[in-house]
Amino acid sequence: MTSATTPVRQGRAADALRTVRVTRGYTMHAEGSVLIAFGDTKVLCTASVEEKVPPHKRGSGEGWVTAEYGMLPRATHTRSDREAARGKQSGRTQEIQRLIGRSLRAVFDLSKLGERTIHLDCDVLQADGGTRTAAITGAFVAAQDAVAKLLAVGKLQASPITGQVAAISVGIVGGVPLLDLEYVEDVACDTDMNVVMTGAGSFVEVQGTAEGVAFTRAEMDQLLALAEKGIAELVALQTAALAEPLPTKGAA
Amino acid sequence: MTSATTPVRQGRAADALRTVRVTRGYTMHAEGSVLIAFGDTKVLCTASVEEKVPPHKRGSGEGWVTAEYGMLPRATHTRSDREAARGKQSGRTQEIQRLIGRSLRAVFDLSKLGERTIHLDCDVLQADGGTRTAAITGAFVAAQDAVAKLLAVGKLQASPITGQVAAISVGIVGGVPLLDLEYVEDVACDTDMNVVMTGAGSFVEVQGTAEGVAFTRAEMDQLLALAEKGIAELVALQTAALAEPLPTKGAA
Amino acid sequence: MTSATTPVRQGRAADALRTVRVTRGYTMHAEGSVLIAFGDTKVLCTASVEEKVPPHKRGSGEGWVTAEYGMLPRATHTRSDREAARGKQSGRTQEIQRLIGRSLRAVFDLSKLGERTIHLDCDVLQADGGTRTAAITGAFVAAQDAVAKLLAVGKLQASPITGQVAAISVGIVGGVPLLDLEYVEDVACDTDMNVVMTGAGSFVEVQGTAEGVAFTRAEMDQLLALAEKGIAELVALQTAALAEPLPTKGAA
Amino acid sequence: MTSATTPVRQGRAADALRTVRVTRGYTMHAEGSVLIAFGDTKVLCTASVEEKVPPHKRGSGEGWVTAEYGMLPRATHTRSDREAARGKQSGRTQEIQRLIGRSLRAVFDLSKLGERTIHLDCDVLQADGGTRTAAITGAFVAAQDAVAKLLAVGKLQASPITGQVAAISVGIVGGVPLLDLEYVEDVACDTDMNVVMTGAGSFVEVQGTAEGVAFTRAEMDQLLALAEKGIAELVALQTAALAEPLPTKGAA
Amino acid sequence: MTSATTPVRQGRAADALRTVRVTRGYTMHAEGSVLIAFGDTKVLCTASVEEKVPPHKRGSGEGWVTAEYGMLPRATHTRSDREAARGKQSGRTQEIQRLIGRSLRAVFDLSKLGERTIHLDCDVLQADGGTRTAAITGAFVAAQDAVAKLLAVGKLQASPITGQVAAISVGIVGGVPLLDLEYVEDVACDTDMNVVMTGAGSFVEVQGTAEGVAFTRAEMDQLLALAEKGIAELVALQTAALAEPLPTKGAA
Amino acid sequence: MTSATTPVRQGRAADALRTVRVTRGYTMHAEGSVLIAFGDTKVLCTASVEEKVPPHKRGSGEGWVTAEYGMLPRATHTRSDREAARGKQSGRTQEIQRLIGRSLRAVFDLSKLGERTIHLDCDVLQADGGTRTAAITGAFVAAQDAVAKLLAVGKLQASPITGQVAAISVGIVGGVPLLDLEYVEDVACDTDMNVVMTGAGSFVEVQGTAEGVAFTRAEMDQLLALAEKGIAELVALQTAALAEPLPTKGAA
Repeated sequence: MTSATTPVRQGRAADALRTVRVTRGYTMHAEGSVLIAFGDTKVLCTASVEEKVPPHKRGSGEGWVTAEYGMLPRATHTRSDREAARGKQSGRTQEIQRLIGRSLRAVFDLSKLGERTIHLDCDVLQADGGTRTAAITGAFVAAQDAVAKLLAVGKLQASPITGQVAAISVGIVGGVPLLDLEYVEDVACDTDMNVVMTGAGSFVEVQGTAEGVAFTRAEMDQLLALAEKGIAELVALQTAALAEPLPTKGAA
Repeated sequence: MTSATTPVRQGRAADALRTVRVTRGYTMHAEGSVLIAFGDTKVLCTASVEEKVPPHKRGSGEGWVTAEYGMLPRATHTRSDREAARGKQSGRTQEIQRLIGRSLRAVFDLSKLGERTIHLDCDVLQADGGTRTAAITGAFVAAQDAVAKLLAVGKLQASPITGQVAAISVGIVGGVPLLDLEYVEDVACDTDMNVVMTGAGSFVEVQGTAEGVAFTRAEMDQLLALAEKGIAELVALQTAALAEPLPTKGAA
Repeated sequence: MTSATTPVRQGRAADALRTVRVTRGYTMHAEGSVLIAFGDTKVLCTASVEEKVPPHKRGSGEGWVTAEYGMLPRATHTRSDREAARGKQSGRTQEIQRLIGRSLRAVFDLSKLGERTIHLDCDVLQADGGTRTAAITGAFVAAQDAVAKLLAVGKLQASPITGQVAAISVGIVGGVPLLDLEYVEDVACDTDMNVVMTGAGSFVEVQGTAEGVAFTRAEMDQLLALAEKGIAELVALQTAALAEPLPTKGAA
Repeated sequence: MTSATTPVRQGRAADALRTVRVTRGYTMHAEGSVLIAFGDTKVLCTASVEEKVPPHKRGSGEGWVTAEYGMLPRATHTRSDREAARGKQSGRTQEIQRLIGRSLRAVFDLSKLGERTIHLDCDVLQADGGTRTAAITGAFVAAQDAVAKLLAVGKLQASPITGQVAAISVGIVGGVPLLDLEYVEDVACDTDMNVVMTGAGSFVEVQGTAEGVAFTRAEMDQLLALAEKGIAELVALQTAALAEPLPTKGAA
Repeated sequence: MTSATTPVRQGRAADALRTVRVTRGYTMHAEGSVLIAFGDTKVLCTASVEEKVPPHKRGSGEGWVTAEYGMLPRATHTRSDREAARGKQSGRTQEIQRLIGRSLRAVFDLSKLGERTIHLDCDVLQADGGTRTAAITGAFVAAQDAVAKLLAVGKLQASPITGQVAAISVGIVGGVPLLDLEYVEDVACDTDMNVVMTGAGSFVEVQGTAEGVAFTRAEMDQLLALAEKGIAELVALQTAALAEPLPTKGAA
Repeated sequence: MTSATTPVRQGRAADALRTVRVTRGYTMHAEGSVLIAFGDTKVLCTASVEEKVPPHKRGSGEGWVTAEYGMLPRATHTRSDREAARGKQSGRTQEIQRLIGRSLRAVFDLSKLGERTIHLDCDVLQADGGTRTAAITGAFVAAQDAVAKLLAVGKLQASPITGQVAAISVGIVGGVPLLDLEYVEDVACDTDMNVVMTGAGSFVEVQGTAEGVAFTRAEMDQLLALAEKGIAELVALQTAALAEPLPTKGAA
């Protein structure tokens, strides 16, 4: 693993994140609304509070945190069909939204949320690789803003959030382990791994896939180290974004 | 009808549009990509060119222009279900996307487009009334940008666009005819009318609905006059926006 | 505008309705059952009373009026797919049934209906243009019969119906404004407008569409005048039909 | 079995059909269009010719005959949901339309139909028991009219129809075997059997169901004898109806 | 009818069943779990007890018995689409599961079951003709085992089962009436009849279909006699299987 | 990590697999048909060869390998809804079948398969934890049998299979890392990881999820070591099973 610039990415080190931009208060209605950019990947993450829970939580005294994911038809290089028009969400969409939901629940103490639901909607406005990791990283910030509102109006006395959570992709392209894959890298990679970690440095999810050649244990160790580095940086960026005052009007 | 400020809108005249903002090149992949804002209503309109046509146009030598409309779940005051998750588009969604498609086709000479399709995707990021009229007005600009690209690369020799098209809502609230209804006005109005007109001042669509009391012919005349004023302004705004150079990188 | 016979219609004046026939008690189970014919267009409109309301009205003390629309597969020149077999209603079907529902609610005081629903089912047995306007005009008569039964059995003390409602199409064919378009005229027209009005002469809905060339304000005025004439006649025909005794056995 | 009037049916003998009425040319667009009434049960059966076949028959030189069945929402005592709105056909609907299709194909030599499809649409306008048997009996007449048109215009040289087909229900109510059950009898019966036979007196389908007590072989023999009697009468009624000239204009 | 070996089946008499094998306790979770084999046709029938009833039975004090049927994609000679992936059950599947449900309810006194449901799931692991008759015959054994458990734990004081039920197919192949058709016989047959009978020898369902030539009354009598013979044997096999002790661990 | 018996599993060491049983030729129609048991988890894996490819491979000269997964309704402790009846596959089902497909494709050289598809259907007859890992391990054996048939009949000259693939679950329960989780362990675990590896010891997929507390890098290393041990054993079991002669008749 090297931090020198590699042929596969223009002027970016193999272990460098793309420029990450977090814009809170992006739209005005949601309790939390964040536009997160990982380079040219841009995802709008909103957190909506609903004062009821799904059937499996009713009467439990506990809350629920869930996520949905979508991609605007022309977020991608060529237009993809609108899932609402096709009448069903793809397997990929369902896999991603289940991943986002599990990742966020990992830092929630649901017993402290009360019988309410936080819906995290992650909609990709522009895609250039890493949409699910951007979504998780942005959804955490949106969830934090929504919880802050519940605390501010006295609906909650203490935060149910137990820590930060962020996600990044890593992969091996042409034998070189890379952090935060762009679309062209994602297409070319042999191994692709999405890693979700807490602010404390523990793993929430690890999903590694050999797209081409199977990968060795040594390669896996390299990828995990890259991911740990990237997530530490993302956690710091979340902290910095949340330290700023929330814009009073939608920023879109 | 009066242009004086009325109680129902803060500091805005009854015959005044909200601040309209048109941002071209909002996302980077689409052939045309426009974020249009009518006050706090914000709609992302993309135009995607596909080099084939639907079955009813195959072999005709003609092209096709079609539209889809969506609303992000938390574009609204309270979260609405995601249509892709519910597995079907609502009647309202279908009505709106059919309206956008017809409106845009009204200014296209399909025989000059060649056997290709322009897909207009209008996705509401933030809603505050008038999403369908903003969508039509923005979709025209996106379509124009897409056609400009087809001309630039030589796929078209002459533009198939025969004129401009824009849309606005008008309504009667508490007896006062108003131009460009915001959400609170839309909810309170007795009569709501969406008007689509060409740059030349002719009508493409008129859809008036008495939500409460049925409306008289005299009221209808007042509303049509308001709409004519508003659309003339929108057409000028479209022209101005299209006169500027297109940003080279996504603006989102 | 002229009432002289024009080339486009055989022996019928430009401002003349087709022969309208209203048959009450057409089927025997429904609380109201009307076969309405606008020339060769024949629509069976039934009104069914259900002693409960949809969720958004529960506990409100108010009732609800709603409509569904369907077309038998071979009501048309060539067979169209059965929507039940395809598994979804088309956008056109949904648009029409939403229009019928809004139009009928415009003459109902829902607070006087009690917590019950009137379902209006409009099924086209034979189509020759103007199915939605025939449906609205016939559905009003069926609704009136259903309300009469509720009054007769003492479930209602006073009628919740506040006035009559009827609908007609108008259009411009070959430059000539015409009332009540038949199928061949509908296909050929530049502008098509459906107008729904109350018995008192106010507008409930106006839906005008330029199928070809956009239409001018002057043309719109001509079309609205034609519609006003036609609807006055339809309202009189409804009144006459309702003045007759209801057949005791299904007339089908 | 007795032909004396029984308590369960007013003035009708146990082995008597209800009044059967066959109206050809009921609607004007279909190649065959028949309204058939078995007492208060009224079914509109249309036959539509399409000049292509489904995939499993393509290139075979053979044609296809298929059926669809529907019930208007208020054909019944209490309104039932519209299948198109629910988004799927019930198991009962599918069972019936498969039965109608098989029954009609039993009297078609598909190799003589050419590569075309006859669609039989059976839509129940009013239901009072026996809708599927009325549908089969009426669909045969509609199919015959459609074939006559194909012969008349020279698309067929010889009829692909090899015989007549008709259907009737029989059942045991309170121990009494009855022919042609009305709704109240159908609800009360222990055993319900639908029998489809050719004009030549052979069986095409026998579907007997014990709704209450299982039935004996002796009871089955009684029911089959009743069915044979009823179908012979229906076949004669079909023949008589087809001997009359076809009305030139829709009779609805 | 003859019991001599016929050319169509290798070494099996025309009136002979295939080897029938009943394995109780096939899987371990279900209250009743039976693998039934009719020759190479193998169906897993499970009976699951649920302590609630569907809406139409709520508050009635009565229980419900219902069935679902499925075929593994490669139970058949060539792979068929998975119904779960296609998003709907075929008409054939629905017809069969409705038949199984009715057949089992024929031997249940629902008023003695209490407000609970017995779900019978019949999944075909391997198909070689006669899957629906094997399913009914096996589902009865599974239901019996489930009821025995309810009695054993004291949830029921008396059995709601009023008798045995079994089913068999019969058909005419090349003019020869045959019992228990295998797949190759089923494909070749002119007439196919499925017969469901009680242990007492009465008919629950008779479903005969002429696939080719319509069948005569005499042929029907021959087929019914064959079915009576076969079902008497199946009923004895059920009795014998139920007389053995239930395996304690899943046999799969 | 210890191989001593832990309190959570009766008599099984923490690093021990359950008894694994592989039955080839389980059903008779499929080109490959394997019942695999991991203890009480039993999955039927069939491999079906189809002589065409999906659209994205047409004309490529390459083949395709794909998988579908299902669970019989009563494979589980309490009955779950049948996906075919509900009309859609759950997100979980789609996730699993995508995983199986990717895992098998990792050991296929699609360019050597020719333009044909191998469908792997994995249906769970009985579930007790680890259904997806049993499915992958069994599907490999079924695929091998199907390829052997293609070689035997000369449709393939060389095997497109490049190595073995197997899968196992590992997890941490009460602080103890365990191999091959049973259902009760799966429910109780803090961390659950599914690992797919080749016969050569490289990773194809790693999917780790913290169900409760996030896991550390050290714990991850322990889990990966356990998985490596288990998969080496599974690969040996696959090899042994494939060394035996294939039964000539379905074993079910």
